[in-house]
Amino acid sequence: MPTDSTTKPPVTVLGLGAMGQALAGALLAAGHPTTVWNRSPGKGDALVARGAVRAASAEEAVRAAELTVICVVDHEAAGAILEPLADALRGRVLVNLTSDTPERSRESAAWAAGHSIAYVGGSVMVPTPLVGTADALLFHSGSQEAFQRHESTLKALGGRTVFVGTDPGLAALYDLSLLDFFYGSISGLVHAYALAAADGVRAVDIAPYLGTIVQILPPIAEYTAENIDAGTYPGDQANLGMMATGVDHILRAARHRGLDVSQLESIKAVADRAIAKGHGGDDWASTVEALRGA
Amino acid sequence: MPTDSTTKPPVTVLGLGAMGQALAGALLAAGHPTTVWNRSPGKGDALVARGAVRAASAEEAVRAAELTVICVVDHEAAGAILEPLADALRGRVLVNLTSDTPERSRESAAWAAGHSIAYVGGSVMVPTPLVGTADALLFHSGSQEAFQRHESTLKALGGRTVFVGTDPGLAALYDLSLLDFFYGSISGLVHAYALAAADGVRAVDIAPYLGTIVQILPPIAEYTAENIDAGTYPGDQANLGMMATGVDHILRAARHRGLDVSQLESIKAVADRAIAKGHGGDDWASTVEALRGA
Ligand SMILES: NC(=O)c1ccc[n+]([C@@H]2O[C@H](COP(=O)([O-])OP(=O)(O)OC[C@H]3O[C@@H](n4cnc5c(N)ncnc54)[C@H](OP(=O)(O)O)[C@@H]3O)[C@@H](O)[C@H]2O)c1
Ligand SMILES: NC(=O)c1ccc[n+]([C@@H]2O[C@H](COP(=O)([O-])OP(=O)(O)OC[C@H]3O[C@@H](n4cnc5c(N)ncnc54)[C@H](OP(=O)(O)O)[C@@H]3O)[C@@H](O)[C@H]2O)c1
Repeated sequence: MPTDSTTKPPVTVLGLGAMGQALAGALLAAGHPTTVWNRSPGKGDALVARGAVRAASAEEAVRAAELTVICVVDHEAAGAILEPLADALRGRVLVNLTSDTPERSRESAAWAAGHSIAYVGGSVMVPTPLVGTADALLFHSGSQEAFQRHESTLKALGGRTVFVGTDPGLAALYDLSLLDFFYGSISGLVHAYALAAADGVRAVDIAPYLGTIVQILPPIAEYTAENIDAGTYPGDQANLGMMATGVDHILRAARHRGLDVSQLESIKAVADRAIAKGHGGDDWASTVEALRGA
Repeated sequence: MPTDSTTKPPVTVLGLGAMGQALAGALLAAGHPTTVWNRSPGKGDALVARGAVRAASAEEAVRAAELTVICVVDHEAAGAILEPLADALRGRVLVNLTSDTPERSRESAAWAAGHSIAYVGGSVMVPTPLVGTADALLFHSGSQEAFQRHESTLKALGGRTVFVGTDPGLAALYDLSLLDFFYGSISGLVHAYALAAADGVRAVDIAPYLGTIVQILPPIAEYTAENIDAGTYPGDQANLGMMATGVDHILRAARHRGLDVSQLESIKAVADRAIAKGHGGDDWASTVEALRGA
């Protein structure tokens, strides 16, 4: 156990899935006395070996610290754990790092408010191996007072610990927005490999070239953001008509090879609707006009 | 005009859309005497001002050089231009940088072979501002002899000029594979901004955080490639069940805000099919099993 552990505030972690374990591990590494609990037994042995205290019940766990962090699969699972803990949590701080919708986050915050529990809704934006590093990004929202009081502890989870607003649903909104980009990307990624494999080209032969695409995403993300906020989409460098044709090429090649093309069909349909609205000569960002009011 | 222009081989560029202009511009910058032509007049004035020769006809253009590069919207458009040029191109080299399917590329190569035209099928993997830079990636396939003979000229278009095989459709396969990832990503990107905007969060407020997602894509691309080639998908760091739940959260939040959710629905359906096949505890890469045999 790190020698300075007694000088750091204690923390309780509920939920020891892949992410819960990573969070508890980062707290231990930073020297926080850490109490852990998971619904099913048998998880967290490695944490206990590193000095974590395994509580016999969730209630015992939350009574061990002023700050409880919960991270389970969704807010329904979190609710099932938290509902019986209302009394034990009264007057304490709950940081809910479970990913869900802004609506569900606001409901959880309202439940907490009804039981005098200071509530911070948050989300972890990095894979488990990055948790606790300087680069790890986490969003928080809700009680700014509670966040600030525990900010130095929460910084142990990631160097980029950001408070995005007092609306407790805001961290979830930022979370889902980033995940929206993430899942579009990794779905396209797996499909890209399936397409290559259909002609006998291995995924590892394609992978080295994907960096070229990754490299152009940040400038695209930047000017697309500016164009969407401004509502203007200058398309002189690459126009939607040409790009929709490109999507159609992938779609036809993939269909020809017997692959599922549902994601490509939906991308193409959105592009086609934007073209029908007159955006064929505009930038790809103009597809936003076809996403709204669906 | 650069002083060494007479020492570099002349090149003809057919098609002066955004990409054709970028290609001709890079050739001029490298000192190649460059002849240009476009179906509709009025394009390429800036190139002519920089020393390009505008041909009065496509035939006059291709007769001006041993090497012709064509880059138009698709192979149908390329075919419309090339068909009447069969005689003029006989014995010359045609590098077709028009993006299309592997099937269409092979048809174009067969047409060229039938007219004794040395054919290289290629694709440009970067946006126009990067054309001609050391970072610019271009794939080529087909006649290796013709490629090698003109390699130093083709390198003027991009430092990363790669020959991927003698099957003329291979460059298109690599192209579409990378584009598959690209369009999944930028479709998710625009949707991410639309989702944030629905709650009053500006795209420029989300954009600075997207770098965190971009940063994790290269390692994901690498291990996903290895897993897909191996057909094993260890999911101990992040499992498909948890991730499908995450996609469902975005889907429900987006639907609640009246946004089109067709891309998310198709991503979710693929994930659900993989889970039904027993991959709920596996990595996201296992979704490849649900894409095949559609
Ligand atoms: N893993 C990542 O890379 C990653 C990255 C960013 C964010 N996240 C987020 O972190 C959260 C947790 O993800 P994870 O990867 O840790 O998931 P996981 O490995 O699948 O673990 C799921 C956790 O939820 C618990 N749980 C599920 N249903 C429950 C219920 N009805 N009642 C009580 N507990 C229940 C599980 O307990 P049992 O052991 O008893 O089943 C387990 O502790 C999710 O919101 C996810 O979106 C994960
Ligand atoms: N722009 C990019 O960022 C980018 C990046 C990578 C790859 N590419 C690829 O580069 C190629 C060209 O794209 P681009 O951006 O230059 O497109 P663009 O700006 O839309 O230009 C289209 C070109 O195709 C010609 N064309 C269209 N239909 C034709 C027909 N029926 N007959 C003859 N010519 C026809 C146009 O001639 P008119 O002027 O007469 O209409 C114009 O020269 C595409 O395959 C694209 O996938 C583009």
